Amino acid sequence: MRGALLFIGDELISGRILNTNAEFAGKILSATGLKLTEIVTVPDEEPQIIKTFKRLLEEYDFVITSGGLGPTEDDLTTEAITKALNLELKESKTLLSAILSSGEYKGTLGMAKKMSMLPEGAEILSEDSKMLGFYLHYQGKKLFFLPGVPEQFRFLLKDRVIPLLCEVRGGERGICKEERILKNFIFFDLNETDLNQFILSLKGKEEIKIGYYPLIPEVRLVLLGDKEKVEEVGNQIKERFKVNLISEEDESLPVITGKILMERRLTLATAESCTGGYLASLITSISGSSAYFERGFVTYSAQSKIELLGVKEETLREKGIYSFETALEMAYGARLIAKTDFALSTTGIAGPTGGTAEIPVGTVFIGLSVPHRVFALHFRFEGDRQTIQRMASYTALDLLRRYLLYGESLFSYRFALGFKERTF
Amino acid sequence: MRGALLFIGDELISGRILNTNAEFAGKILSATGLKLTEIVTVPDEEPQIIKTFKRLLEEYDFVITSGGLGPTEDDLTTEAITKALNLELKESKTLLSAILSSGEYKGTLGMAKKMSMLPEGAEILSEDSKMLGFYLHYQGKKLFFLPGVPEQFRFLLKDRVIPLLCEVRGGERGICKEERILKNFIFFDLNETDLNQFILSLKGKEEIKIGYYPLIPEVRLVLLGDKEKVEEVGNQIKERFKVNLISEEDESLPVITGKILMERRLTLATAESCTGGYLASLITSISGSSAYFERGFVTYSAQSKIELLGVKEETLREKGIYSFETALEMAYGARLIAKTDFALSTTGIAGPTGGTAEIPVGTVFIGLSVPHRVFALHFRFEGDRQTIQRMASYTALDLLRRYLLYGESLFSYRFALGFKERTF
Repeated sequence: MRGALLFIGDELISGRILNTNAEFAGKILSATGLKLTEIVTVPDEEPQIIKTFKRLLEEYDFVITSGGLGPTEDDLTTEAITKALNLELKESKTLLSAILSSGEYKGTLGMAKKMSMLPEGAEILSEDSKMLGFYLHYQGKKLFFLPGVPEQFRFLLKDRVIPLLCEVRGGERGICKEERILKNFIFFDLNETDLNQFILSLKGKEEIKIGYYPLIPEVRLVLLGDKEKVEEVGNQIKERFKVNLISEEDESLPVITGKILMERRLTLATAESCTGGYLASLITSISGSSAYFERGFVTYSAQSKIELLGVKEETLREKGIYSFETALEMAYGARLIAKTDFALSTTGIAGPTGGTAEIPVGTVFIGLSVPHRVFALHFRFEGDRQTIQRMASYTALDLLRRYLLYGESLFSYRFALGFKERTF
Repeated sequence: MRGALLFIGDELISGRILNTNAEFAGKILSATGLKLTEIVTVPDEEPQIIKTFKRLLEEYDFVITSGGLGPTEDDLTTEAITKALNLELKESKTLLSAILSSGEYKGTLGMAKKMSMLPEGAEILSEDSKMLGFYLHYQGKKLFFLPGVPEQFRFLLKDRVIPLLCEVRGGERGICKEERILKNFIFFDLNETDLNQFILSLKGKEEIKIGYYPLIPEVRLVLLGDKEKVEEVGNQIKERFKVNLISEEDESLPVITGKILMERRLTLATAESCTGGYLASLITSISGSSAYFERGFVTYSAQSKIELLGVKEETLREKGIYSFETALEMAYGARLIAKTDFALSTTGIAGPTGGTAEIPVGTVFIGLSVPHRVFALHFRFEGDRQTIQRMASYTALDLLRRYLLYGESLFSYRFALGFKERTF
């Protein structure tokens, strides 16, 4: 099964938009073991679309297009490929009513109708009018037509296209399922070179496909191949990087940490300075988080740290806002006031400005308050403001995860410089 | 002059690397007015490289390849395209000595020699051994072969390839010099269909290229073409969608809102329920936000709304957590306690669970507290949890932006269902 991707849009040809859909599609297709042999991008020009689509149709077993399904003048994909396939356009009643019922195209029936015209025989991939996309089984070839909007493209590719591709011809179902299995490991704070050297030392690694994909700050390791071999290699890797392993089910750190808290009926509060709410938003991005997340403080000003968390004025004055002591008092105060089982705190310099020789940009103190104890770690993260805020927030969550699972091994972070603890 | 880009590399096909070179090349070529008609990516497989290169050679006036020029065995480009052109490989003495003198390949003469073998007639694009890349004038076509390393690709494209392309045929030199400008508008809460219909009605629109790109939830409109025409069309669009226009400098809503607050020396606090810290993290993602953002409350539990913001227990009980009154009291309390000029609040159901017939998922009440007044708007957003949290947070920021710039026009949101206000 060899396939191609066709991206349609002036915005891609002219570099006004970075083609992240191509990256996502490449990842997921190669992870599934489907062979992607060509990625083409063309402008919003019918002749070029038709010519290119005809060529891909001839050369490959499956073709996935992205873009040009919308209601506007420069959305030409459906018409162009219908011509290329010598088919007729037919109105999809399901799609039309879905679009109309969404109400977004009130008073612009023309646009709704344009979007509802599909090549005869096409099946829509979703009944959500915000998820335009269709599928065509044509002379033994599987053809998919997806919108260019990343959220929609990714959802439809992952939840609709891949399953349909994996079912192509009984014999080949195995490509994606039986013979070859796909194992996803999500790691955090993993050193790429350590991992690589370890993998090189493994027996049986030649027989499986190993992909290493930074999700930033998490890392996904993908093992693809013969079931036994994948299990064998996978187990060695799990054993070696146990503490860094977040999930074997492709679940992210916020999901996993939330699950542990939920299962144990434990509650959490946050007190953020340099992460400015990002930590809380990570936690609350998970549905059901209200079961364990009680409240969050974004104490951006010094005054708010004193008023809301009871951080001592002299601590801020004498030890500084970016210090072990401030992180300890923030976490302690948050847990006390919120009456939760745990509290996490962050204080530091996300930059790009504000750094000094003693306290450079990237300096972050992370606190964890647990019954009778408060910990604080001193980190030095690298990267731009967003990266530092993200690294600090994920590291805070991982600190809690490790404490819940292991209690110990708090020190073993790549970017950690020091540790302090208070007992009471 | 029509041309194509050919990217060669498994890392691109499998999505291990995001193709930023394509974006850069697209930008610079379209800015110079050179017509890029196709971008292709293929894996490190000689037959595929040869077949694709031959096709592009036939169809286009210029072809630029990226990747596969290095010393390792999966670097196949030079050999493959030499075969495709039916040429012989010849050692480039200049290149070889440059590479050897760089000392980087000491003791690996084989690698140095491999990199020095170029198709006969090729001219190297730089004598810097770190900038491998060559150029071939072949049967009236301009062929460029660049390394995939972004720094090298960009430097050679900008400083070598573009000048050479612009000199092709005196008559067309002008193409690259002509006054074309690119205008970026960032809009929020803009109805695509309204915009499209308005644009269709504009005079002079035929002469410029108009692109419409959802950034979710912001929208970018791009105008490209003759300076005068772009200004003319741009001004009409600005006039018509004034209130929705966030920026003409490609700046996002958090940046713009922050700038206004900073310029006027005004301060802000947030009180979030359903957005769970996302609103605060948007604000604090901007460097310098500590000048205007004082603190944020993530009052996820009912208890925290009462304790931290002074929301009345009977309000929660009688009006409900998802109500105008709760949003009003949250915003009022946050502003009072933080002693800021403004406060924003959010309360609602991000889903996917928790919705009811009366209060479906997507229901969000957003409050804005200003001196002597508190407003609250009732919204019904669509999409998944992340989309709803993002829409609510951006809308809250835009509510403040509109209040600061216009005071009025608070009602004109696509997803707004109602409005309430308190004065005191």
